[in-house]
Parts: sequence; C-alpha cells; structure tokens
Amino acid sequence: MISNNNSSCSQQTKFNLVQVKGTWIRQSDQFQLAEGKLSDAKIYENKSEHGVSWTVVSPVVFTYRVIQCKNILDPTNDTLLWGHLGEEELKHTLSNCKPPKRFVVIDENVNKLYGSQVSQYFKARGVVYKILPLPTTEENKCMELVTKILEEVHEFGIDRRSEPIVAIGGGVCLDVVGLAASLYRRRTPYIRVPTTLLSYIDASVGAKTGVNFAGGKNKLGSYVPPVAAFLDCSFFQTLPPRQISNGMAEMLKMALMKHRGLFELMETEGRKLLHTKLQVCKTRPEQEDSATAIIRIAIETMLEELAPNLWEDDLDRLVDFGHLISPELEMRILPALLHGEAVNIDMSFMVYVAVQKGLLTVDEKNRIIQCMLSLELPVWHQDCTLELVQKSLKERLKHSAGSLRMPLPTGLGTAEIFHGMIGDGILCQAHKKWTDELSSSGDK
Amino acid sequence: MISNNNSSCSQQTKFNLVQVKGTWIRQSDQFQLAEGKLSDAKIYENKSEHGVSWTVVSPVVFTYRVIQCKNILDPTNDTLLWGHLGEEELKHTLSNCKPPKRFVVIDENVNKLYGSQVSQYFKARGVVYKILPLPTTEENKCMELVTKILEEVHEFGIDRRSEPIVAIGGGVCLDVVGLAASLYRRRTPYIRVPTTLLSYIDASVGAKTGVNFAGGKNKLGSYVPPVAAFLDCSFFQTLPPRQISNGMAEMLKMALMKHRGLFELMETEGRKLLHTKLQVCKTRPEQEDSATAIIRIAIETMLEELAPNLWEDDLDRLVDFGHLISPELEMRILPALLHGEAVNIDMSFMVYVAVQKGLLTVDEKNRIIQCMLSLELPVWHQDCTLELVQKSLKERLKHSAGSLRMPLPTGLGTAEIFHGMIGDGILCQAHKKWTDELSSSGDK
Repeated sequence: MISNNNSSCSQQTKFNLVQVKGTWIRQSDQFQLAEGKLSDAKIYENKSEHGVSWTVVSPVVFTYRVIQCKNILDPTNDTLLWGHLGEEELKHTLSNCKPPKRFVVIDENVNKLYGSQVSQYFKARGVVYKILPLPTTEENKCMELVTKILEEVHEFGIDRRSEPIVAIGGGVCLDVVGLAASLYRRRTPYIRVPTTLLSYIDASVGAKTGVNFAGGKNKLGSYVPPVAAFLDCSFFQTLPPRQISNGMAEMLKMALMKHRGLFELMETEGRKLLHTKLQVCKTRPEQEDSATAIIRIAIETMLEELAPNLWEDDLDRLVDFGHLISPELEMRILPALLHGEAVNIDMSFMVYVAVQKGLLTVDEKNRIIQCMLSLELPVWHQDCTLELVQKSLKERLKHSAGSLRMPLPTGLGTAEIFHGMIGDGILCQAHKKWTDELSSSGDK
Repeated sequence: MISNNNSSCSQQTKFNLVQVKGTWIRQSDQFQLAEGKLSDAKIYENKSEHGVSWTVVSPVVFTYRVIQCKNILDPTNDTLLWGHLGEEELKHTLSNCKPPKRFVVIDENVNKLYGSQVSQYFKARGVVYKILPLPTTEENKCMELVTKILEEVHEFGIDRRSEPIVAIGGGVCLDVVGLAASLYRRRTPYIRVPTTLLSYIDASVGAKTGVNFAGGKNKLGSYVPPVAAFLDCSFFQTLPPRQISNGMAEMLKMALMKHRGLFELMETEGRKLLHTKLQVCKTRPEQEDSATAIIRIAIETMLEELAPNLWEDDLDRLVDFGHLISPELEMRILPALLHGEAVNIDMSFMVYVAVQKGLLTVDEKNRIIQCMLSLELPVWHQDCTLELVQKSLKERLKHSAGSLRMPLPTGLGTAEIFHGMIGDGILCQAHKKWTDELSSSGDK
C-alpha cells in the first residue's frame, strides 16, 4: 500500500503484471519484479470498509497498414494475398502447408467489372476462396447485410486470426464488412480494397465501421481497424466523373482544415485531375506528379488526425468538418446525394458561417466556393434548410457530451473547433447569404 | 529517413504525432518536437518505387472499475448512479444542471424480485430513466435481443459519452447489453450489475460481450469493457443453490489454474459457503471471513489474467480451462446444463486427461473431483461423449491459429498450456476411466 487515496479511509495499491511460465502475477511497485514479461496493463486496488475496488488500465495496441500499390489484381502481385503481413509473419504463414483461405465480399457493381479478375487472382494463387457479391448501397447499409455476411462467413469457415476477410468496393462495402469482421468471434482480421476515390482516402485509412440504424447514419458500428488497406488508383478508371468529385470533397475537407498546400493544389490542378481521373501521368517520372501528390497529402493528413484518436476518445475532431449537417441531409433525401456531395454542401454552408463569425475573409470564401464549383461539387441544396441546420446542430449538441464541437476554417488550411452553440442570428444570416449567393449555382 | 527497411530499396521514417492548437502534426524523430501534446501513436512511412505505405501503431487505453459494494439499491448509496466516475469527473458532471438519464436493462426474473427497488432508486435520485425487462436466457442470447435493446435505447435517447446503459442480471444479460452498448454509436458506456455468482466473478470483470450465432456459443461479440461493474453479494440471497454451485465452478477454474490457496479454501469451506450463499458472517469483523476471501481471490486471479490480454491478442489463456468442450456440450443440450455446470464437466474430464498425461497424481485428481462433488457440481455427463470431445478439440484447432492451446492443471493451483493435439490414445483412455469412475456420480 503506497498512497492514500483522496477518499477518506481507503488505501490504493498499484500492481504491475508479470507473466511467469504462462501465468500472470500481479506485483506491487514495492517489490522486485519476478523474471518474466511485464505487461503495460496496471491494476489499482482500493480497500475500504465497504470492500475492495479495482481499476483496470489496459492499453490495447492496434496496428494496421495502408499500402499504395499497382496492379493489385495481377496474380504475380503478392499484395492482395500477403500484403497485410510483415516479413516474419509471412515466413511463418508460408511454412504452414495448407492452402490459404479467403472470404471476399465485393460490391455487385464492382463484381461486374472486376469479379472475374478477382477469381482468377485467387485461383492462380491456389487459394480456397469464396466471393460474395452484395448490393452495398447507402440504402442497404444495415444490420441485415452484416448478418448476411456473417452467415456466409460462418458456413465457409475461416481461422479467426490468420485468414482475413477481404472487402472490395466503396465506402459502404468497406464499412459493412468491417463491422461483420469486428463482430465475428469478437474480431476477425479484414482487409479493405477501396474502389472509389472517396473510400480510398477516407474509409480505408481509419478504424471506423458502421451501418445505418433507425433512420440515422452510421448509428451502429465499431472502431476496429483493418489489418491492411490496399490502395490501387487504377480502379478509378472505371468510375463515373461524379464519383471522382465525390471523393475530392473529402480531400478538400482535409485541405481546408489543415493543409494550405493541398488546397492550392486542388484549386489549380483539381479540375484537370477530375477529368484525368487521377491517373498518374508518366511524363516526368523523376518528379511527383500532381495526382500522386494530392492523394498522398490527403492520406497523410487524414492519418495524422485519425491515428492519435482511433477510438475517438477525443470528440474534438477536425475530420468532422462537413459532417455536422450532412448526415441528416444525406439520409433525408437518399439516394439523391452522394456522401461527398452532402459533405460539400455542409462545408459550403459552414464557410458562410465562418465568414459571418469573422473567421474567414470574403475573398477566402470566394476561392473556396470557386474551387468546389471547379470540382463539379454541389455547393447548395434546397433541402438544406435553416430548420434542418438548426435541428442537426441541436442533435449534435445533445449527443456530444454537451458541447457542439464545431470545426470551422479560420483561413485556407487552418481551423479551430468551436464549442458553444452558434447564435441563431449568425446561422440565420449565414443561411440567407448562402442561399442568396449560391441557390442558382446548380443551374447550368 | 532514418533507417533502411529489410526490403530492397524502400526507406522507413518514423513519425511522432504532436497536437498543436487542436491540429495533429506528424514529425520525424530527427526534428525537435513542436510544443504540444505528444500522442502514444506512431506512423511509420515507407517509400518505394511502388508508392508509399504507412503502418499505424495506435494504443487505445481501456479503463474500467470493478467495485464491491453493499446495499446498491439503497437510494442513499451513490454507487449505482455515480460509482463509475472519478472524483473530478463527478464534480464536472454534477455541475451540469440537467437531470441524469439512465437506460436500464434488467433480466425479467430479476425484475420480479428487484424491479420496484430499482425504480425507487432512480426515482428517489431524480433520474430520468427507463427500465427494460428482458428474458435473458441462453436460448434468447442472440442478435434479435441486441436489436431490441438498441431500438429502445435509440428511442429513449442518451448522451453517447456521459449516460451509461445499466445492465442488471446474470451473465447473458450482461453480455447482451454489453454488445448493444458497444455497437450503439460505435460504443456507449455501460455498467454491469451482476445478480448471479457466476456473472459476479466472470462476466463482470472482463471486456467480453457476445451473443450466440448459428448454433455456436458467443460467436458474435466485441471486447469492450464496461465503465464499471458494481458487485453486491446480497443478490445471492435470492438465488437457488444450483446457481451458487454454478458460479463456484468458475471459481474452481481459477483455483486449479493458479491459486492453491483458493483451491484449499474451496475444499474445506466450499460446501458451507454454498449453503450460506456466500453471505458474509459478521462474528469476527476484524478478520476476513471465508466468503469474502473466496470471492476476493476469485476476482483478483481473474483480473490478473484478463487485464494484460483484454483483446485476447494472446490466444494462450489459462481462463479457457473448462471452455474447450463445454461450449459445444452446453449448446447441444440447452437448457439442461447451466454454463458453470458444463464448464465443470469439461474440467472434470480434463483432470483425467492431465492424469493420463502424467501431469497430475491420482491423489490430486481425487481431491479435485471430491471438491467438485462437495460443491454439488456435475462431474460427468452422458452427452459428453468421446466423439464430442474429439470434435470440439478439432474445431478448437481449426479456429485457434493452428494450435490447440489447451490449459491443463499440472498440480493443485498450477497449470500449463499445451499446444499440440492430444493423441487419440490418451483421450480415449482418459474418457474411458472418466466414465468408469464417474458415470454413476449423479445417482443420488
């Protein structure tokens, strides 16, 4: 017993945990540790007249890889099969003589385009595999789809630690498979292979999984990262331009929140990249081209914000910019807007709020809106009414431990998080100006 | 770039993460860190001719309290309402003027006995509450029950960080509510109030949640600990004796695996404690009575094994003793056996395996079986056939990264984990001897 606790007559002892011959033993700080593996976990014991209480503090380390690669479906490329493993793990796995097993969930549209290549890949590599194509749309993003995957996985049978479930598709597919994998046997490894730009730079790099529930977006889910995300830009070639714009909205979010260089790159190069679908131009191989740079910075900035806050212990999140009003808007008019489009409408409105609060100049606002328009993103929507804005912010306030936590740009590439409710006056004026200036922006 | 990676021409850079004015910035080891909060998370970047890859290593710290208390339903006792908070958090919460909200899930049988006290407690404390009684039996332990809870929670409305869901009941209730809470908004705090001995020393102290799926026990779930478990022995007074025996099986597991003192206490005092339902005897208040001691050691030993391995990264788990064959047995003859009874039958058989392997003496085996019988636990079951044993172990082998990982006692209170498959000869002989000696043990 080493210290008095604050409460009157209890005494606290801190225990380390040491593993000796497979058995964990607790040892107080006072004593010499036994020889063995020391855990990072601690147990604090309090004894009082009411009985004993223990506080367990246990860090769980999550490790995952985000890997850019080319030709992922080429059977000579190891990445899809083994890219999630380090060298030592791979050696160990290859020493196992039984053929590897992979359960693959693929979006049904992606399956039409790439399904036979996926099959050929696993066939060529001698893998025992099953491919499950599913309609992974926002409207279907619910527990029933998770259950469907779980039933098929269970029937197929996988080793709960060494045979990852593979998800190939857009954000909905990656989110739904991630949730299924995190539930199966309390967590099964899974791999994300994004096929849209949005999921490439957003869903792939973090830990979140989720489905919609009771009309609310991503109301159910978990924070379990994939073992790996494999990022191959060549999938973008088959995307319609609207899907490229959709992804660029999330890039623009990172640019506005924390990277002026990224914003300027999008401002000058964005429109061209939209039309070349971010395919790498090989004219000057010694220099990073703008497609590569824009994607790299988007991922780096996203990882910077996600890695230190994997379980969102801190609710103050810059990456929530564009995500305060958009969930409500997106769910309400489903499927009229893509996720990035709804996010962009939210960001566009918030830029007006920032101007109204004196955080941004009119010139900065104009540059941002101009950039959005050049990326062919919607900047206004008739269903994004003042009432919807107010309702969304009130919901946010209610569900975020009593604080609004609203990220707002304070310049091009800098931001702050505001905690108090925004006054109705500012909201109302910003909404009026936003509508006056941009309501005709969609008219071509 | 500080070091060459093993692979041919890639270079690895390690980045720390520093938060400056709300924005996370990555910084390589070479540079002086900016002023700000340093994260424990790291990002390792590798650049090669194929592109960039990143490895994210992010520790998430789980903290939870396990608190023994008396008179938990007495409105003058703060524990049920505020026991999950530290002093500072409590001060902050109490400064909030709105009344606290609590969503309570209670087993329907527990509700008959204690429901009105629970209501009175929350009413007396001015809490906005809803109580949802549910039939939380092993047969109902499935996703449908989780969904039911989620729908009601969603309708009731809670703050996702400050208004914990409270579960009052046995292990099934605590597991199901834990899963619902871990899914709702990707995790909502929850509190466990065990009302059975088994859940008091087992489900309450760890991170596991779960439901049965596709005929398999706890096939779906998560590793999300409660914010707190509140342990009040007085609930045992209304338990039938069979439920006390049921809990004692899990205590005996910890005794056999790692605590000779606990085994000897159960051997000498167990039967008496079974009949007094572990109610504390107050004759000598200056000395720890055997009921208090037996419960305390059971929890301490359990916490020792769970805290360092909260997400079961290490699959070698002493606490799996009694849990290799029992899940199959329990599910197959549901509801004939309680969980602890199935565990005890598994342990009883494994004790014979340990003797057959030369790990235990016949005398030690006899003492263990005698102790089990004195606790009125079944030591044999006709449905625990050799075929079921072999099937269970093969399943285990298949699903545990290619290793059996079988904990076996190597004495009274010591154990080891065995990795290879047990030979059919040993299994067969142990099963025959087990059946010969114990098949008539149930005849009264």
